[in-house]
Amino acid sequence: MKIWDKGIAVDKKIERFTVGRDRELDMYLAQFDVQASKAQANMLAAAGLISTTENEQLQQGLAELAAQVENGTFTIEEEFEDVHSKIEAYLTEHYGDAGKKIHTARSRNDQVLTAIQLFLKDYTQRAAARTLELVEVLLQKAETHKADLMPGYTHFQAAMPSSFGLWFSAYAEHLLLDLALFEAAHTVADQNPLGSGAGFGSSFPIDRLQTTQEMGFGNLAVSSVGAQMLRGKTEKTVAFALAGMAATLAKMAYDLVLYNSQDLAFVELPKEFTTGSSIMPHKKNPDVFELIRARCNALQALPNTLMLATSNLPSGYHRDFQILKEILFEPMTQFLDILDIVLFALPQLRIKPDLLNQPKYDAVFTVENINQLIQTGTPFRTAYKQVGLAVEDGSYVPHKEFQTTHLGSIHNVGVEEIRAKVVRFQQASSLIGTY
Amino acid sequence: MKIWDKGIAVDKKIERFTVGRDRELDMYLAQFDVQASKAQANMLAAAGLISTTENEQLQQGLAELAAQVENGTFTIEEEFEDVHSKIEAYLTEHYGDAGKKIHTARSRNDQVLTAIQLFLKDYTQRAAARTLELVEVLLQKAETHKADLMPGYTHFQAAMPSSFGLWFSAYAEHLLLDLALFEAAHTVADQNPLGSGAGFGSSFPIDRLQTTQEMGFGNLAVSSVGAQMLRGKTEKTVAFALAGMAATLAKMAYDLVLYNSQDLAFVELPKEFTTGSSIMPHKKNPDVFELIRARCNALQALPNTLMLATSNLPSGYHRDFQILKEILFEPMTQFLDILDIVLFALPQLRIKPDLLNQPKYDAVFTVENINQLIQTGTPFRTAYKQVGLAVEDGSYVPHKEFQTTHLGSIHNVGVEEIRAKVVRFQQASSLIGTY
Amino acid sequence: MKIWDKGIAVDKKIERFTVGRDRELDMYLAQFDVQASKAQANMLAAAGLISTTENEQLQQGLAELAAQVENGTFTIEEEFEDVHSKIEAYLTEHYGDAGKKIHTARSRNDQVLTAIQLFLKDYTQRAAARTLELVEVLLQKAETHKADLMPGYTHFQAAMPSSFGLWFSAYAEHLLLDLALFEAAHTVADQNPLGSGAGFGSSFPIDRLQTTQEMGFGNLAVSSVGAQMLRGKTEKTVAFALAGMAATLAKMAYDLVLYNSQDLAFVELPKEFTTGSSIMPHKKNPDVFELIRARCNALQALPNTLMLATSNLPSGYHRDFQILKEILFEPMTQFLDILDIVLFALPQLRIKPDLLNQPKYDAVFTVENINQLIQTGTPFRTAYKQVGLAVEDGSYVPHKEFQTTHLGSIHNVGVEEIRAKVVRFQQASSLIGTY
Amino acid sequence: MKIWDKGIAVDKKIERFTVGRDRELDMYLAQFDVQASKAQANMLAAAGLISTTENEQLQQGLAELAAQVENGTFTIEEEFEDVHSKIEAYLTEHYGDAGKKIHTARSRNDQVLTAIQLFLKDYTQRAAARTLELVEVLLQKAETHKADLMPGYTHFQAAMPSSFGLWFSAYAEHLLLDLALFEAAHTVADQNPLGSGAGFGSSFPIDRLQTTQEMGFGNLAVSSVGAQMLRGKTEKTVAFALAGMAATLAKMAYDLVLYNSQDLAFVELPKEFTTGSSIMPHKKNPDVFELIRARCNALQALPNTLMLATSNLPSGYHRDFQILKEILFEPMTQFLDILDIVLFALPQLRIKPDLLNQPKYDAVFTVENINQLIQTGTPFRTAYKQVGLAVEDGSYVPHKEFQTTHLGSIHNVGVEEIRAKVVRFQQASSLIGTY
Repeated sequence: MKIWDKGIAVDKKIERFTVGRDRELDMYLAQFDVQASKAQANMLAAAGLISTTENEQLQQGLAELAAQVENGTFTIEEEFEDVHSKIEAYLTEHYGDAGKKIHTARSRNDQVLTAIQLFLKDYTQRAAARTLELVEVLLQKAETHKADLMPGYTHFQAAMPSSFGLWFSAYAEHLLLDLALFEAAHTVADQNPLGSGAGFGSSFPIDRLQTTQEMGFGNLAVSSVGAQMLRGKTEKTVAFALAGMAATLAKMAYDLVLYNSQDLAFVELPKEFTTGSSIMPHKKNPDVFELIRARCNALQALPNTLMLATSNLPSGYHRDFQILKEILFEPMTQFLDILDIVLFALPQLRIKPDLLNQPKYDAVFTVENINQLIQTGTPFRTAYKQVGLAVEDGSYVPHKEFQTTHLGSIHNVGVEEIRAKVVRFQQASSLIGTY
Repeated sequence: MKIWDKGIAVDKKIERFTVGRDRELDMYLAQFDVQASKAQANMLAAAGLISTTENEQLQQGLAELAAQVENGTFTIEEEFEDVHSKIEAYLTEHYGDAGKKIHTARSRNDQVLTAIQLFLKDYTQRAAARTLELVEVLLQKAETHKADLMPGYTHFQAAMPSSFGLWFSAYAEHLLLDLALFEAAHTVADQNPLGSGAGFGSSFPIDRLQTTQEMGFGNLAVSSVGAQMLRGKTEKTVAFALAGMAATLAKMAYDLVLYNSQDLAFVELPKEFTTGSSIMPHKKNPDVFELIRARCNALQALPNTLMLATSNLPSGYHRDFQILKEILFEPMTQFLDILDIVLFALPQLRIKPDLLNQPKYDAVFTVENINQLIQTGTPFRTAYKQVGLAVEDGSYVPHKEFQTTHLGSIHNVGVEEIRAKVVRFQQASSLIGTY
Repeated sequence: MKIWDKGIAVDKKIERFTVGRDRELDMYLAQFDVQASKAQANMLAAAGLISTTENEQLQQGLAELAAQVENGTFTIEEEFEDVHSKIEAYLTEHYGDAGKKIHTARSRNDQVLTAIQLFLKDYTQRAAARTLELVEVLLQKAETHKADLMPGYTHFQAAMPSSFGLWFSAYAEHLLLDLALFEAAHTVADQNPLGSGAGFGSSFPIDRLQTTQEMGFGNLAVSSVGAQMLRGKTEKTVAFALAGMAATLAKMAYDLVLYNSQDLAFVELPKEFTTGSSIMPHKKNPDVFELIRARCNALQALPNTLMLATSNLPSGYHRDFQILKEILFEPMTQFLDILDIVLFALPQLRIKPDLLNQPKYDAVFTVENINQLIQTGTPFRTAYKQVGLAVEDGSYVPHKEFQTTHLGSIHNVGVEEIRAKVVRFQQASSLIGTY
Repeated sequence: MKIWDKGIAVDKKIERFTVGRDRELDMYLAQFDVQASKAQANMLAAAGLISTTENEQLQQGLAELAAQVENGTFTIEEEFEDVHSKIEAYLTEHYGDAGKKIHTARSRNDQVLTAIQLFLKDYTQRAAARTLELVEVLLQKAETHKADLMPGYTHFQAAMPSSFGLWFSAYAEHLLLDLALFEAAHTVADQNPLGSGAGFGSSFPIDRLQTTQEMGFGNLAVSSVGAQMLRGKTEKTVAFALAGMAATLAKMAYDLVLYNSQDLAFVELPKEFTTGSSIMPHKKNPDVFELIRARCNALQALPNTLMLATSNLPSGYHRDFQILKEILFEPMTQFLDILDIVLFALPQLRIKPDLLNQPKYDAVFTVENINQLIQTGTPFRTAYKQVGLAVEDGSYVPHKEFQTTHLGSIHNVGVEEIRAKVVRFQQASSLIGTY
């Protein structure tokens, strides 16, 4: 079988090459192109560029399309090169001249860009909502396991006593922090480019503030030249946000893969999340978390791919921007899938209690032995040497009875303080919508 | 000369390899390690872990070091592996036992991290202030040149009438928008990790909220495990911010390189910003803007370099993090240099007036010819064809008298509306400090 | 429509997440898994691990599968998680116990790896063959247009006389040079990992040299641990090769996009390769070359994506490697599509003759004026100044009658010398197969 | 102290910005610019463009400079912007008119490029020689430890018996394989660009084949346009080679960091390669290998940084290329340092014997238990179940007496076969010089 040489005629090849996977990827944009077209029609009517009747027809047709998108019957047939052609064709077919006028004072450039802005803005809110769910799950686990100690590792070496409470709350706090990049992406996506035309505005007397308001954009991308420069920038900023949070999830997955190993055995992964080996009956491979890690690592590559595809292009539209959809849209979905899977796995994660009772972890208490000696008057250097020698000659007895008091320590995890951070974020952030 | 084989003994090689360029890079951190040490000492005194006298001595010693840093006499001698050793050694040399106690309830891990957080937070504010200066310069140029038309290009082809007003204001608006990523970086840098020790807290009764407040951090990184996970994340978020703004500046530089070519000749670059050719007397090469472009493009690679250096490391400290300083710190300075140079160049940039009087740009008015025909009743398709044929047979006469009205168009640039965005940003942003 | 929340049950989600797009991507591997299985069966029979009859059955079944792949009827049904399961199931269904024995002394790890090695090795040869076709087309164009002069640009500025002969032959020479990376990729792919099992060999008395020879591998990956470490490395080396050549093609596309602009107008692109504007009748946008440029730039990001997905994994198999297929395989096909499209476009490319007769390019002859003065005894510095002043005061008359003689200059392009390089490459390279 | 605002005047800033670190970085090129200048002068004399006496003077002056470079007294003073200015100035100062003529028929573009090509070509050979030393060290360790078994891990889980012999030889084989990319880099660097001038050749009757031969280049970069396109490509190909080998070394370092952990404890690292903790007396942190890993991971980012800095530039010289030196040259040195350190560390690495006698690794023999049962007639599925149950109910007794026979297995490591691969490489490769 020749996979890449199917005897396709050259013009077909070129068509396939230029259209690419636009039809498929544009399904993400359908809802938003409809939304923007409604605002555009209302504004054209208000400006006297189309009649009230024409606007009513357009609103009716667009409502029909919105319903199709909602109930899953909307399709982009082979005869249309993209979602925008399909929507115009539908309006023209059903509402004649009114349909033809929807494109007045609009160019394909600002139309596509507006739909992408709306889509990406919506996505940042959707992803933030899902993330906050995960933060809450982690905080609950932190609360539940706040007294469950585990060895804390540095340099891949058991170092000091730590706890599952600190571990779970660490990831809660970091995912919350990762929303700062989603906030930035939301800010960039929240600029309305509609009316910037091909990038230099138009001579029609349009009202860009009206469409800004109707579509719920927080800001107008004022300069038409600047509005076009959003193409690629919003995508990249979303990719930064994905990369940031993916790094956190990859680290968590890496921890869990290690913690699931026979050597550490700190946790037991949910059954659905491991696979056996076809030849080794003792194995319990953490495949799902390995795949989460791998996909999250690949997500970290997204900003760079977008930068390579768009860097060193002067201002103004270039066809190059079209491929950004195929670089970004599917990974965005994949990222939500990953959040879903982590959300499902974490509540089922079982941790092993009493890990620090194992003699092999005795040495993690050396810091506490030293502190105890210091409190009884031994100078630090002497105490350090004394404990070190005891470890070497085997006479060392770990000092396990100690109490930490400060915020963020093993006996005072600070779950409530982190919850307060979540609440402050929710009150201040523009990311928080209705999802 | 053998550059890399100087007959250095192996242990020297290893020392050089592990210390790396720490001494040099740690100069960036000196001011902030002093600041954090002051807060640490005050907190230790308040908690009764050191005496009031000891604290007074430490504050005195640290004030001396701060003065050295301020007046440029602070140095890190060869005998110290980093800035932190140097500062402790100074305190111990001058204040004896008090100096030895500064490290109580602190580990090298949280100490380094705290200095880096303070440094990066400071940097985001500094960079934001410089950026807002540039935004203002651009808005002034936009105001000055709002009536100077130029051809607008898409696909590297002259397309429609545009203006220098739109071009300058586009970059003003985008640099402002790029601050959203600096805001995110500031949020991540604004978390206090002090007291997290080696990453698992300590059994000393320290007060982490006190140091948070004294150092001016907006938030405490509560979980000690999470606090350590800031290492690498803050650096990366700053790198995202740099990459985002660097892309904008690279695009501006690219435009200017093109606009300076003999073919377009839209602008005249300041003399200091071009060089001649040693063999071609007619050349005026835009070397400075080419270098700005190249360096900005290289800055876009920073996030990826940081990600490759830190990805797939489980939680907890690893020595790998040390090299992030050498990846990030110099490019951060380089970026401020670039801002400086652009700030110097733009006011001197001279634009060529009356560009659209050149017959070679007549075709950019075709859209206006078509609009004019539409307004006199010709259907769009007919008008499009008619104008297209006129272009081909040479009978085309451009319709140059037209007026745009909408916000962000060539006759209504919207400089004031963009200024209003700047003001809104300044009122809301936590980036705005005293720089 | 909610694209990413279709109410799918969690276990389905997990299955979808772990299987990913394996079925689809494994179609690339079918032919090669069959080939490797044939070699495996023959070796097992020779080693006495299966009977001659069993081997005959397996060879028969595998020949049937090979025919299915060849004629396009081979499929991987939903019930199979990958191509390897499908092939074994087919053999077992049709040949009973013999089918069950094909997996003797083989693990899924070395099986998958072997198929990937064969596939990637085949690809490097296929891509090389296609590239050499393109080199030949370019050399023909160089020959045809060797006397057609054009302005040579540096710093985006017209600098000196150049020629289409030099331009076409430059790309011919560079594509040939880019094959050096394909050669490296071929070398890495040309290592046989079969028999390394799960990465630590097996206790079966297998003959790895026999399978090496039968599958046509140039080398055996001797160490079983090392054999498994090929996973990810071969993919990355192929990605380096693609990135290298993609950079060359992106540069060519960029040149052509510029040369197609109204300002330069050096070439006329084939009609199928440009599109008009829906609102600007004078535009001829070079969309196909913009997309070639964009896709080639995205291809340059591949090595990095692979590195991020695999870096910081210790030796031994990790499930992470599975996603490399979805990162690499489709772009590989896309790259061949790009070569096809360029191969189709170039012969049709029309160049504009007599470009240097345009007065606007007079200044590119200044170097020749200076050389002429030097030959008549004027010192260089004096000549440089004299010509420079003439350019400035408008008295400059270009010296267009000059002759270059050296190899690689405008009057001695050296097409034959480059052809000789191609021949030397063909004689020496292991990339040259039967494609 | 204000690090980035030292009150420097703007023109100084611009000079600093444009010259960058050229003086420092050009020290790498001094030897090669001298070598190329010698060839250039000889060719100019042969072509009658300078006199025999002038050539003798130039050869004399260049020999003096070569001696300075060799004995470390060569310097580039502040008054020269780069090494090329310095060399010309020296020749002119000492040999008058002859010195002024060295630049005949040469432009700065091809001069710089030629020196870089020679430097990078030399580097590939130097790095290859060092790599082969490391390969040999690894093979010796593999030979020494071929009978020392260790658990083989997949998915971070102990899986099957492996051996240090397989582990050491795996890395030997991979480093050898990584030389394929160095071979590619050598091929690209082995093209002579001298005589291509500013990128479009010259009208002087120069003999480019003569300089090719004298400088020992394997090939002439024929097309002058193509010759200039080497700028950036050779650097990138070297970066691919570094990234490839860095990945192998990073993996080895990662393995060793893990193997050094208390949990695995497979190896003991040389004392100089670990550091203790200032607060935990039981720690032995593998800092040097962590830094090797981190630096190698950062080296993997190099190709991408180069691509971002150079992508989307049309053909012809741009000043952007200047910054490639600062991106690439120091990491090249760093890479050789890493090789040195690994070369020093490996012979001292001590491995722990009898690892598989530890009961915790009993389960890695399950595959052998199953194979044993199969040989006594039990069907595979039954044997798998039986052994699995025994593992679960604690009755499992590992089958430790087994023998592997195939090449690349634990009892037949194949060190000699890998040595034969090294010899074949040495016989065929053009990388093998005199280093």
